[in-house]
Order: sequence, then structure tokens, then C-alpha cells
Amino acid sequence: ARPRVGYFYTGKTGTQLLTEKIKKLTVKEYQSIPVVVEESSSVYDAIVTMFLEDVGTLFVVDKNSLLVGVLSRKDLLRASIGKQELESMPVSVIMTRMPNITMCEKDDSIIDVASKLIEKQIDALPVVKKRGEQEYEVIGRITKTNMTKVLVDISHDELD
Amino acid sequence: ARPRVGYFYTGKTGTQLLTEKIKKLTVKEYQSIPVVVEESSSVYDAIVTMFLEDVGTLFVVDKNSLLVGVLSRKDLLRASIGKQELESMPVSVIMTRMPNITMCEKDDSIIDVASKLIEKQIDALPVVKKRGEQEYEVIGRITKTNMTKVLVDISHDELD
Repeated sequence: ARPRVGYFYTGKTGTQLLTEKIKKLTVKEYQSIPVVVEESSSVYDAIVTMFLEDVGTLFVVDKNSLLVGVLSRKDLLRASIGKQELESMPVSVIMTRMPNITMCEKDDSIIDVASKLIEKQIDALPVVKKRGEQEYEVIGRITKTNMTKVLVDISHDELD
Repeated sequence: ARPRVGYFYTGKTGTQLLTEKIKKLTVKEYQSIPVVVEESSSVYDAIVTMFLEDVGTLFVVDKNSLLVGVLSRKDLLRASIGKQELESMPVSVIMTRMPNITMCEKDDSIIDVASKLIEKQIDALPVVKKRGEQEYEVIGRITKTNMTKVLVDISHDELD
């Protein structure tokens, strides 16, 4: 006999189904545009770029547009209260550099990224595309702001 | 006849039930400890406090411990590349001040806070307790990091 209710028993509760839907969300659905500076840029230029673009994290690229470093507001603030001239100090002196950069790819799960942001205590990850051995092109930026947006969408039941 | 399935029809889908559970999450379940500086503190002292406590937002209080301002990393970075002496500049010159501070209370919904963080483009809200007309004591701090943690908990189905 067919059950007389509107939902069939799948062995899963509704919350499990939503949890699975959340686990299927990917980086590309929520990522932001990356803001990059060249490795020869000065710390001063990086700070100006951060304000103009209104972001909390900058990615540093080489001449071939490959990722070589990451700069957080914290890195720039630390440098700015130091004694050195910001105009003559290259960002490469203060950035977090490869291979110590935590990255992700566009098809990675949002939840994996959220876990990495918490675990590593960072605000943003570069979204990259592998170009060669230890060579990554930056194609996006995913941040705690994006994660907050995901949470709001879930509460509005706006996952497609 | 009783339906032969394990779940009763409530007129709500499972995802609606989880959505409701998420909407019931409150600030007090996720808030962090606030880090405060006095309004007479220098910008330099505030920067040092921000690094020692490893936070992205400081709350500024008066002698009665009431909230008078908020300082973001961005505010401090802007000040630090200015021409003035950071040791002699009081934080009151650069802080966002009352009544322009977006606040929340411990029983507020996490989702309302998430929406405010997105809408106002800020990283953190002070959790306050009203003490009088326009007088608020700071009792907590809630940030995009806390929101990211909520998301991870939801995906692990760890809402109690």
C-alpha cells in the first residue's frame, strides 16, 4: 500500500537531506573576485589597493600571474607600525608565501573551506587553478563574508 | 489508519524544520569574549591590544564600562599610514562612535546578526546589555568567524 503522507521514507530525516544539500554547495557558487598585487609592489601600494578595493586580503602574483603570496590586513597593520619606509618595502618581505598558503579550487565544498578558515584562523582563501607543478593561477577569493552569506541563504531556504 | 512510514506529516518539510532550528540559534550560544580599550587609550595601544588579543575588532568603553565606540582593523590601518603620531592620538579620534554603532543582544537570532554583518559590511558586532537611555554595557563580541563556525556545525548536524 502507498503511504498516505506526502513524503516517502528514504531512511533519511529532513535535516539530513538539508545537511547533504549544504555539503554539496561549492566554492564557485559563492566566491568573490580576487584582488591581486604584483610581488614587486610596495607595502604602501598594497595598503592603498586594500582600501580602494575594500577587501581584507590581497593575493600576490608573479609576472606570469601565478600565486606567490597572501597579504592580510593584519600583515599590513604589523608592517605599518614598524620603523621601515612603507614606500620602499616590497610586499614580498611581509607576505605569507608558497608553499605555506592554504588554497582551494572552484569545485571544493563550501563546508571544507569553512572548516579550513576556522582551523587555520584566516579570513580568506585564494581560489586557484593548477597550471603546473606548484604553479597556481588565482581565479577567485572566498572569505568569511561569503560564509556568512551562505548562512543567511540557508535560513531563507534559498539553496536551489 | 496510521501511516506506515517513520515520519508524520506536519505540513512542513524536513528542510523547513532545520531552517526553523537555525532561526532559533541565538547570539549567546556562539558569542566570543569582547576585547575593550578605554577611550583615553592611544591608537598605538589599540593596535598593540589588537595583536596581543588576536582580534579584528576592539570596543571602546568609557570609565563606567559603557560602550562609546568601535575600532576595526581597517580604522587602525588607515590611521597608521597617516602622518600623525600614533602614540599621542586617542582612539576617540578615529573610532566609529555612538549612536552609529550596530549592536545586538544575547538573545538575538544568529541569522539577524548574520544579515546585519552582510548589510552593514562589518566584521563584528558588540553584544550589549542595556543599562539606561543610550547606555550599553559590552558583554560579548560576535563575528563572521562565529558565523563560519555556525555553518560548520550545521553541516555536521551538531545543532542540539
